[in-house]
Amino acid sequence: MTVTYSSKVANATFFGFHRLLFKWRGSIYKLLYREFIVFAVLYTAISLVYRLLLTGAQKRYFEKLSIYCDRYAEQIPVTFVLGFYVTLVVNRWWNQFVNLPWPDRLMFLISSSVHGSDEHGRLLRRTLMRYVNLTSLLIFRSVSTAVYKRFPTMDHVVEAGFMTADERKLFNHLKSPHLKYWVPFIWFGNLATKARNEGRIRDSVDLQSLMTEMNRYRSWCSLLFGYDWVGIPLVYTQVVTLAVYTFFFTCLIGRQFLDPTKGYAGHDLDLYIPIFTLLQFFFYAGWLKVAEQLINPFGEDDDDFETNWCIDRNLQVSLLAVDEMHMSLPKMKKDIYWN
Amino acid sequence: MTVTYSSKVANATFFGFHRLLFKWRGSIYKLLYREFIVFAVLYTAISLVYRLLLTGAQKRYFEKLSIYCDRYAEQIPVTFVLGFYVTLVVNRWWNQFVNLPWPDRLMFLISSSVHGSDEHGRLLRRTLMRYVNLTSLLIFRSVSTAVYKRFPTMDHVVEAGFMTADERKLFNHLKSPHLKYWVPFIWFGNLATKARNEGRIRDSVDLQSLMTEMNRYRSWCSLLFGYDWVGIPLVYTQVVTLAVYTFFFTCLIGRQFLDPTKGYAGHDLDLYIPIFTLLQFFFYAGWLKVAEQLINPFGEDDDDFETNWCIDRNLQVSLLAVDEMHMSLPKMKKDIYWN
Amino acid sequence: MTVTYSSKVANATFFGFHRLLFKWRGSIYKLLYREFIVFAVLYTAISLVYRLLLTGAQKRYFEKLSIYCDRYAEQIPVTFVLGFYVTLVVNRWWNQFVNLPWPDRLMFLISSSVHGSDEHGRLLRRTLMRYVNLTSLLIFRSVSTAVYKRFPTMDHVVEAGFMTADERKLFNHLKSPHLKYWVPFIWFGNLATKARNEGRIRDSVDLQSLMTEMNRYRSWCSLLFGYDWVGIPLVYTQVVTLAVYTFFFTCLIGRQFLDPTKGYAGHDLDLYIPIFTLLQFFFYAGWLKVAEQLINPFGEDDDDFETNWCIDRNLQVSLLAVDEMHMSLPKMKKDIYWN
Amino acid sequence: MTVTYSSKVANATFFGFHRLLFKWRGSIYKLLYREFIVFAVLYTAISLVYRLLLTGAQKRYFEKLSIYCDRYAEQIPVTFVLGFYVTLVVNRWWNQFVNLPWPDRLMFLISSSVHGSDEHGRLLRRTLMRYVNLTSLLIFRSVSTAVYKRFPTMDHVVEAGFMTADERKLFNHLKSPHLKYWVPFIWFGNLATKARNEGRIRDSVDLQSLMTEMNRYRSWCSLLFGYDWVGIPLVYTQVVTLAVYTFFFTCLIGRQFLDPTKGYAGHDLDLYIPIFTLLQFFFYAGWLKVAEQLINPFGEDDDDFETNWCIDRNLQVSLLAVDEMHMSLPKMKKDIYWN
Amino acid sequence: MTVTYSSKVANATFFGFHRLLFKWRGSIYKLLYREFIVFAVLYTAISLVYRLLLTGAQKRYFEKLSIYCDRYAEQIPVTFVLGFYVTLVVNRWWNQFVNLPWPDRLMFLISSSVHGSDEHGRLLRRTLMRYVNLTSLLIFRSVSTAVYKRFPTMDHVVEAGFMTADERKLFNHLKSPHLKYWVPFIWFGNLATKARNEGRIRDSVDLQSLMTEMNRYRSWCSLLFGYDWVGIPLVYTQVVTLAVYTFFFTCLIGRQFLDPTKGYAGHDLDLYIPIFTLLQFFFYAGWLKVAEQLINPFGEDDDDFETNWCIDRNLQVSLLAVDEMHMSLPKMKKDIYWN
Repeated sequence: MTVTYSSKVANATFFGFHRLLFKWRGSIYKLLYREFIVFAVLYTAISLVYRLLLTGAQKRYFEKLSIYCDRYAEQIPVTFVLGFYVTLVVNRWWNQFVNLPWPDRLMFLISSSVHGSDEHGRLLRRTLMRYVNLTSLLIFRSVSTAVYKRFPTMDHVVEAGFMTADERKLFNHLKSPHLKYWVPFIWFGNLATKARNEGRIRDSVDLQSLMTEMNRYRSWCSLLFGYDWVGIPLVYTQVVTLAVYTFFFTCLIGRQFLDPTKGYAGHDLDLYIPIFTLLQFFFYAGWLKVAEQLINPFGEDDDDFETNWCIDRNLQVSLLAVDEMHMSLPKMKKDIYWN
Repeated sequence: MTVTYSSKVANATFFGFHRLLFKWRGSIYKLLYREFIVFAVLYTAISLVYRLLLTGAQKRYFEKLSIYCDRYAEQIPVTFVLGFYVTLVVNRWWNQFVNLPWPDRLMFLISSSVHGSDEHGRLLRRTLMRYVNLTSLLIFRSVSTAVYKRFPTMDHVVEAGFMTADERKLFNHLKSPHLKYWVPFIWFGNLATKARNEGRIRDSVDLQSLMTEMNRYRSWCSLLFGYDWVGIPLVYTQVVTLAVYTFFFTCLIGRQFLDPTKGYAGHDLDLYIPIFTLLQFFFYAGWLKVAEQLINPFGEDDDDFETNWCIDRNLQVSLLAVDEMHMSLPKMKKDIYWN
Repeated sequence: MTVTYSSKVANATFFGFHRLLFKWRGSIYKLLYREFIVFAVLYTAISLVYRLLLTGAQKRYFEKLSIYCDRYAEQIPVTFVLGFYVTLVVNRWWNQFVNLPWPDRLMFLISSSVHGSDEHGRLLRRTLMRYVNLTSLLIFRSVSTAVYKRFPTMDHVVEAGFMTADERKLFNHLKSPHLKYWVPFIWFGNLATKARNEGRIRDSVDLQSLMTEMNRYRSWCSLLFGYDWVGIPLVYTQVVTLAVYTFFFTCLIGRQFLDPTKGYAGHDLDLYIPIFTLLQFFFYAGWLKVAEQLINPFGEDDDDFETNWCIDRNLQVSLLAVDEMHMSLPKMKKDIYWN
Repeated sequence: MTVTYSSKVANATFFGFHRLLFKWRGSIYKLLYREFIVFAVLYTAISLVYRLLLTGAQKRYFEKLSIYCDRYAEQIPVTFVLGFYVTLVVNRWWNQFVNLPWPDRLMFLISSSVHGSDEHGRLLRRTLMRYVNLTSLLIFRSVSTAVYKRFPTMDHVVEAGFMTADERKLFNHLKSPHLKYWVPFIWFGNLATKARNEGRIRDSVDLQSLMTEMNRYRSWCSLLFGYDWVGIPLVYTQVVTLAVYTFFFTCLIGRQFLDPTKGYAGHDLDLYIPIFTLLQFFFYAGWLKVAEQLINPFGEDDDDFETNWCIDRNLQVSLLAVDEMHMSLPKMKKDIYWN
Repeated sequence: MTVTYSSKVANATFFGFHRLLFKWRGSIYKLLYREFIVFAVLYTAISLVYRLLLTGAQKRYFEKLSIYCDRYAEQIPVTFVLGFYVTLVVNRWWNQFVNLPWPDRLMFLISSSVHGSDEHGRLLRRTLMRYVNLTSLLIFRSVSTAVYKRFPTMDHVVEAGFMTADERKLFNHLKSPHLKYWVPFIWFGNLATKARNEGRIRDSVDLQSLMTEMNRYRSWCSLLFGYDWVGIPLVYTQVVTLAVYTFFFTCLIGRQFLDPTKGYAGHDLDLYIPIFTLLQFFFYAGWLKVAEQLINPFGEDDDDFETNWCIDRNLQVSLLAVDEMHMSLPKMKKDIYWN
């Protein structure tokens, strides 16, 4: 479920964001505590080895190695690579959110353009609406692990009422080596044309209005599919990950406190706990976690989109809108500003 | 209320922006003075402890600590992280402004396409317009704290004239576990269809034109809702906040003036007031404040959108346009450039 | 007036941009020479004080201060803050240009869809066109200082022929606490509907085509208004300005030539004229000037949009197009490639 | 074929991205191993020469050269140039993906708007659909090396069933010095108009809906063509390539381990294997490889778009949709939520 | 002519981009060799003066100056300013390419919507198409130096067959102090309306479809014009140019090899040829050249758009499409996948 905190930051107040630092759900701490422990344990282990196990000559060698590592840690362009990469990931993530398919536009049109309050009319509208919901469900199944878990087979889709047994038979019957998520839209078009021929849809203007809206819905669906199909090139993700992991590996050695009595530059203080290195770990690893969370927003992270909820909401609301609410109108009354 | 200063910077003049530095409302000073005082007090406290309380050995230790902190303060990538983050926040903020729902496009269409100057015609146009305003009010209530304070319950919505008692009953009667802000748009569609059947709307072209515009309005509403629902991932905000806060914490120790007589590099001057550190505080904390202000532009900051004003303006103007001004026309006269 | 130099850089030639360095209008020199003089004078004054007035001990103190300033000048993140800020400003500026309202699309439609070469037909087309121009004029008045100077009152608008006296009366008569720039568009819609009823506009397809185009025009107008109303948050501008001004203030002290004989690192040369600091002044102050110029492109800078010219051009051209040129056609002849 | 790994990163887990580091297909290792070997061999060769072949004086000279190279290696703005350049390439690459032409929108419209289940009707729909597929094939042939290999001549296009022999004759017959990929769309328009005259397409609304969709398809095609035709300016690519290659060339000399006994700063450790330089090679060369892979996504890289698959899928699916599925409808049944 | 190299980089291969380094047309070498020679000559001259002409004291002074220059060369923010500026220029350049007006969408519509194979019908379609081409020609004349050279006067436009003598008379006759490139579109609208009245265009749906497409074409034209009219503010270009030029000027002195025997830090090697400075010259000057080339893509650079070719192609293709190919259709035959 998405972690919403916008109401917490409605006003810029005294150290406004500090309250956000004490949240657990979706927080940097929850996401990073395991990595942090591993990092701290490794650091401590190396520190203990250096302090207790190594002999004098080994210590000298380790100290040189540490200084060498520290110097090169600076040269790894973590900040830059991360900055550009995370910007890319965040943009993709937001575009995916914006292109989530919502049936609301279609349901307004179907409710107002497909006429007839009799059973056939109701069936027509409900079936059209169901086809719309079915398509997005088919897409979500191939995009979202959470939805796939809920609907592992087409049986589950039928059981959940998105498809009738007849439709499933026709669907399976269709021979195509390719994905068939577009099939319900063909049915949609055919059914709408039939309704137009029967006079349930008044004229071509109304019909094309429906078809245009359907195509818009389809574009949302296929864009989602595209984002899943063609991700950020693996090489880019690997470059970034390598950069960050290498940086931390280097820090394990390069940021050790060396014996102050040896007088190495910048090593005249032994704090035991490398506070700034740990903080750097939080910044960079946290920044990378932003990317890990958003690169596929259809998983089950705290901050992922609630696709299963969307599916339920869309079916419930759209059937309600085109059936029960069709032509239902509150009595018109003069409003309080009349004259 | 938004702080408008564009007229002050219409022309690029001698040190053009310096005048902006002397504003109070919405200014960096107003937003930051409390944090600044806290920072200055802490700095002074530490300074006094160092100068007056510590013994010689403690002083030496503190000096080493200070130098250590100063060195690592440089390594915190505040500038970069802030640059990318604020860019993200500013883009979202502007997109939210651009997607504020304005009923003007719809009111032009309703005024010109829904015919009849009799009472029924007036009622029709006013009711359609009211549904439009009602939807955006429902959205604003869940998005903006300021609007929510003004309309804490649906009673207030009815009282303010956005909804009639009948409508409210029907609205409440509707069973759905989900948000119902789309309901007035179903009514809108139904009412428009009814008007079409009665001949008040001439043909499908006019009707679909209305429906398209309504769907555009709905998209604005739902996009606003989306921005509120799915914010910038909490982790990102935490990473940035941690980076900035840590930086300042580090500066409290690392930027102390050390005893010049000890000959530490870069510490041969004791100014007492750390002018540049204080300025850096202004830059970075100010930059972060930009984000704090804009991350939710529907609060009550000086620079937040005036949603309550929008709501009033939209209702007043749109009712005026579709009712009083329907078919009102100044007498056509030849303009002064005629022939 | 906009400074156009694109024809000067059509081809990439030998040191292609160097010619641009010798322009005066809209140039960095014209914009900056006053600030530059102030900066140079202050620098010289401080230099003279240091060289001639200070005693030995004071000199030593000043030298330390100067080195201290110089070191921290580096830490002010001017480049970064400016880079992000100017990018933001430039994007906004270009979007404002792209959204300048041009009546051309509407005039083509009015000329071809509103029929009748008699006086009533001409009056109809001219009046529709005038309403369009009137709206943008009302917007420009509240957005642009140059236009406001030209049309300080509604009297001037009437005098200039954008509005008739009757229209003004009706306009003033309308009671609304809010801006009324949308009123001419209501008139536009009403008049178009009347024309449709009279058969001057053939059918709903033509009418809705006109209305859609009008709404597009309105969106341009309101977007311009929005850019003026909701500027870049004051805090952001202040942060940037403070950063740049502070940087220069720091340079005044930190970039002084210190006595070479004292052997301070990097101070073994006394050039008297701090050529690089002056150049840096040009870069950073020039970069900030880009922002100052573009943040409100409706002023009277050399590079601002010529809104008054636009207003004149739009009225002249659009009246010409819908009246004199209505149904005017050159005789059709076979072109030279016929067969 | 595109390398899809999004299901692997659905959830942010413990060191979430580390699994990606062990993939081979499309990975940084597969792309870079040859360059890496060359680099390592050259480095080793130089190292051996320095250690074993050079005389004392030559060694001293080489050491100076190495230090000189190392110092300037830092000054090459690799990170920055790469950051901006890769961002540009990635944006172009994604836009190309988003503009791949899919016939789905058209096939829905054709299936529902072009009537008649008799043979003529079927022929009509299939032919319209074929013209659409033919156009994109013609574009793909000139854009994608993979497609060109599969269809080296128009004969192959005819053989594959995208074109009939008659059409090819007419196509070849047409005299134009320019590319003729637009010809099938003229046929499409003519055929649709003919169908409208025969009453197979009901009215202008349906027809224009088809034409609009066709024009959208054409825009996708021509945008793809544009991306291929007008690439990123050669100079930009050369600047970036030169920067990266120079950097690595410099590192070959500048990052050699110098004799620790000579006491050069930063050279008191001889690790033999320059681990950090090799890692830097991976980062920068990997980042450049991202650009190399994406700059033309229509080749045969692991991460390139599967255009040949697209072509097959589009033909198969669209013919299926407009022919076999035309007016095919599952029996309407009440869904399980009925009442 | 555009330099197309995308087929050369279809696959990421071993040192994939290295082949691009050996191209001449449109390359960095062709663009920069003159500047490079000047730079090298100046550098050598200064070097010779230092080595041969200066006396001992003068040498010492020059050495100090050189070190001073070198230190400040680092402070010039060339990379950053160039990064942001080139990004801006590249975006504008690509938008201009995307908005080049192509008549294809219009020619499909005209061919299918304007009926009649008789001479009057042909004339109608050809004339409409010619007006479209005429408008873009008028725009290109004021935007592109190459086109202006080809059509220096309106006589040339008439001669080339874009305009008839009658049209030119009417065009010149029209009194307006403003540019008149919109006039052919008025004619277009008038002619289309006439065709609608004569029944050559069937109904308003077809007509408005044409008008909408024409307005889209017009928007492309006016956007191109806008890009030419309102360029990147001169100040911005000057700031960038000054930064780069200053940087190189500084390098001429600051990057001289100083006498190694004097023991200046970083000056213990005399290579005579400042290889890295020359490379830096290539990077930065090359980067700036990218901007110089793209800032006005309508010149005659190797990489500029081939506007004259576009003009010819558009006229030839569009006349062919609306005349010869009007209603021409290959015989419909069953495709090879039939059943």
